[in-house]
Amino acid sequence: MKVLVVNAGSSSMKYQLFDMQNEQVIAKGNCERIGSPDSFIGHKAADGREFKETIPMPTHSDAFERIVFALTKSDAAVIENMNEIKAVGHRIVQGGAIFKESCLVTEKVIEDIESLIPLAPLHNAAHVQGIRACIKALGHDVPQVVVFDTSFHSTMPPKAYIFGVPYEYYEKYGVRRYGFHGTSHRYVSDRVAELEGKDKKDLKIVTCHLGNGSSIAAICDGKCIDTSMGLTPLDGIIMGTRSGTLDPSVVTFIQEKEGLSAPEMAQYLNKKCGVLGISGVSNDNRDVTEAAQQGHERAQLSLDILHYQIAKYIGGYAAAMHGLDAVVFTGGIGENNYITRELVCEYLDFLGVEIDKEYNMAHNKIKGHDIKISTPASKVAVYAISTNEELVIARDTVKLVGGIK
Amino acid sequence: MKVLVVNAGSSSMKYQLFDMQNEQVIAKGNCERIGSPDSFIGHKAADGREFKETIPMPTHSDAFERIVFALTKSDAAVIENMNEIKAVGHRIVQGGAIFKESCLVTEKVIEDIESLIPLAPLHNAAHVQGIRACIKALGHDVPQVVVFDTSFHSTMPPKAYIFGVPYEYYEKYGVRRYGFHGTSHRYVSDRVAELEGKDKKDLKIVTCHLGNGSSIAAICDGKCIDTSMGLTPLDGIIMGTRSGTLDPSVVTFIQEKEGLSAPEMAQYLNKKCGVLGISGVSNDNRDVTEAAQQGHERAQLSLDILHYQIAKYIGGYAAAMHGLDAVVFTGGIGENNYITRELVCEYLDFLGVEIDKEYNMAHNKIKGHDIKISTPASKVAVYAISTNEELVIARDTVKLVGGIK
Repeated sequence: MKVLVVNAGSSSMKYQLFDMQNEQVIAKGNCERIGSPDSFIGHKAADGREFKETIPMPTHSDAFERIVFALTKSDAAVIENMNEIKAVGHRIVQGGAIFKESCLVTEKVIEDIESLIPLAPLHNAAHVQGIRACIKALGHDVPQVVVFDTSFHSTMPPKAYIFGVPYEYYEKYGVRRYGFHGTSHRYVSDRVAELEGKDKKDLKIVTCHLGNGSSIAAICDGKCIDTSMGLTPLDGIIMGTRSGTLDPSVVTFIQEKEGLSAPEMAQYLNKKCGVLGISGVSNDNRDVTEAAQQGHERAQLSLDILHYQIAKYIGGYAAAMHGLDAVVFTGGIGENNYITRELVCEYLDFLGVEIDKEYNMAHNKIKGHDIKISTPASKVAVYAISTNEELVIARDTVKLVGGIK
Repeated sequence: MKVLVVNAGSSSMKYQLFDMQNEQVIAKGNCERIGSPDSFIGHKAADGREFKETIPMPTHSDAFERIVFALTKSDAAVIENMNEIKAVGHRIVQGGAIFKESCLVTEKVIEDIESLIPLAPLHNAAHVQGIRACIKALGHDVPQVVVFDTSFHSTMPPKAYIFGVPYEYYEKYGVRRYGFHGTSHRYVSDRVAELEGKDKKDLKIVTCHLGNGSSIAAICDGKCIDTSMGLTPLDGIIMGTRSGTLDPSVVTFIQEKEGLSAPEMAQYLNKKCGVLGISGVSNDNRDVTEAAQQGHERAQLSLDILHYQIAKYIGGYAAAMHGLDAVVFTGGIGENNYITRELVCEYLDFLGVEIDKEYNMAHNKIKGHDIKISTPASKVAVYAISTNEELVIARDTVKLVGGIK
C-alpha cells in the first residue's frame, strides 16, 4: 500500500511517498517558492534518480500537479499512475483544542482547520490549500488524513496550559499553551520505550526536539503533561531565530523603544532573535558551533544559553513528573551535535545522569540510527533518536483508512 | 545609633526607625496617597502609641515633613530631635548594571539612579524624590545610603541574564535580567545558612519570596546565579496581578485582538493578570485560597498553576546548581500559607525533599519566627523564614557609615 505524506507550507510543499508494506520511502521531494515566478521542484527516487525543474507554480494546486508529474512521468518517476496511491496524510501544525488525534478529512474537518487559522496564520492556511490541491488532483475517492503537531500535547492538564493572563482570553480567543512538534515527541517517546524494553506507561520521559525550531516535552504515564512551545512555536527555549519565552516587559519595552507595532514585533521575535540575535553570527547551529570553537564570544554565549535553558527545562519537568527515567535528544541539533548532548547532560548529574562521553562524541551524527549515550550506571537513560514525523503520519494514515489493503 | 529606613514609592513613603544597638524597630509608618488631597500618614511607636492624620502632602518633601513631625512631635513621638538619627538607608528597586552593592549617596549616585529611570519608571523616580526630600529635611551632614533590590543578583552569569533577543538591545538599552527582591533573597539565604550552621558557600539554596509580587532565586557558593524576575518585576511565576513569564506571542496576540498599545499592554500585564486574571476572584492569596477551599474551580486552578510553576523553577534551579541543599519560603505567602509550602514540596520528592506536614500545618503563620519544616530524613532542608528587608538596609547603612558610633 502506497501512502503519500504531504507537508504544505505557505510557499512550499514537501512530500514523501511510502510503501507501507515495508515502511520504506519510495521517493521524496519539495516544491519551493510557490507563488513566485522562479518556483522550483526537487524530487528524488529511493534508487538515486533525481528530477529538478524550475517552473512557475502560481498556486499549491499547480505545485501538486508538478508532484504528480515527478512521481509518474519524470525521469525519476516511481509509479505508473496516481491510482497506486491509496491514501494521503497531511501534516497540520495547529489543531487547537478541536483535534485531539489524527482523523480522516471531511469538509467539516477542513472548515475546522480553517477556523484555527487565527492561531497559526501562515501554517493552517497553507495546509488547507495543500488538502484542497490534493482533492482536486486525486478526487474524493482517495482518503486523506490529517495529523496534527498539537494533538500529542492535548493531554496536558490546565495547570500546564493556562497562561497567566485573564481566563477570558482563553475562553474568547483560545489563548493557551498548545505545544508543537507533537508528532516528533510522540515518535521518539514511543521509540525510547521500545528501546528500553519498557511500557511507555512506566516511564517519565523528557524529549528534546532541537532544531531550527526547538521544543521540549514531559511525557509521563504515556501522556504529554507539559511542553515548552505555547500558543505558537515562538515559546520555550531560544531557537535559531526565535526568542523563546520572555519577560513580557521585554516585548513591550522593545516595542516602545523601536516604535514597533504588535505584528511587527511578533515578526521580529520570530525572525531576528534567538541564537541569531544573541550570537550575531547565524541561526544555524553548525555555523554558531564552529564560530564558538574559533573563539567567538557571543556565539559561545548563545550556545551556553541554549544548553542552560534546556537543562533548566529538564529539571523543571523532572519536578512536574516527580522524577525522570529517560531523556531523548532528537531533531537537527539533537541528532547531530554531541556537544549539545554532552553539555546538557553535565547539568543533570544531580539526577544521576551519566553519559559515555567518548561514545557520544564518536557518534556525533547519528544518521538515521538511535543510540544510547548513558552509561549502564546512569540512573536516567539518555538517547539520541532519529525522529521520523513523516513515518508517523503515514502510519496514522494507514490506521485510519482501515489498515494495509 | 538610630537609623531611618525609607522606602519611597510613587505615591507612598514607608519608613522604619531602628535602634541599631539592639536592631530593634522604634517606630514605623507609611505616608499614603502622596499628591492626592486626601493623603494620609499612619505612624506607630514600638510601645503601641499611634499617630494618624489625613492631611494634604503634595510632594514627597511634604510627606517627609509629616514623618519628622510624627517621629518628634506627635503623640507617638519616639525621639526629641531629628539629630538623633545618624543615618538614613533607602530602598532602591533598580540599580541596573551600575550598582553591584549598597553605597553612600552622592550627587553622582543620585544621577546614576535617575539614569536608570527608563528601566523602572515608577520606582526609581520616586526613590530620587525620597532621597531629595531627606536631604532637604536633614541636610547634607546626615549620611544616606542606598540599598538596591537588584544588587544581590549582580553575580548572575550572562547565560542567566541575557534574553533571547538581539544582543544590541542589551548594549543599547540595557535589556537583560536584573532580578528584584534581592535584599530579601540575600537576608533569607544568609539566615538559612546560619540556621543550618553552615557556610553559605557550601550550600545550594533556592529562595522563594512569595507575596503579591513573587520571585525565586538560585544561590550557589554564596552567590545568586539566577532569578525569576527579569528586566522588570513582571517576569517569573504568576503573581497577584502580574502575568509572569509568557510566550511572547501571547503579548502581541492580545495586543492585536484588543487594540492595545505597548504601554497599555504593559499596564494590563502588571495589573489585571496573574492570580487575579485566572481566578477572577482576587489578587490576594488569602481570598483566593478561601475561594478554592469553597470549591471555586478557577481559584483552585490559579493556585495549582502557582504551585506548579514554583516547583518547576526549583527543579530548573537544581539543574542550574547541579543539586539542591535547601529551599526557603518567605514573603507574605511563604510565611503565612502552609498549603503552598506543602504542595510545592510534594513535587520535590524526587530530590529527596520530605517535610513534616503536621508541623508545617501547625505553624501556618510563622509570625516573625523561622521554622524548619523538613524532616531529619529529608535530603534537602526546607524552611519558612520571616524576611526582613528593612533590617538589611539598616545594617548596610551602619556598615557604610563606619559602624555603630
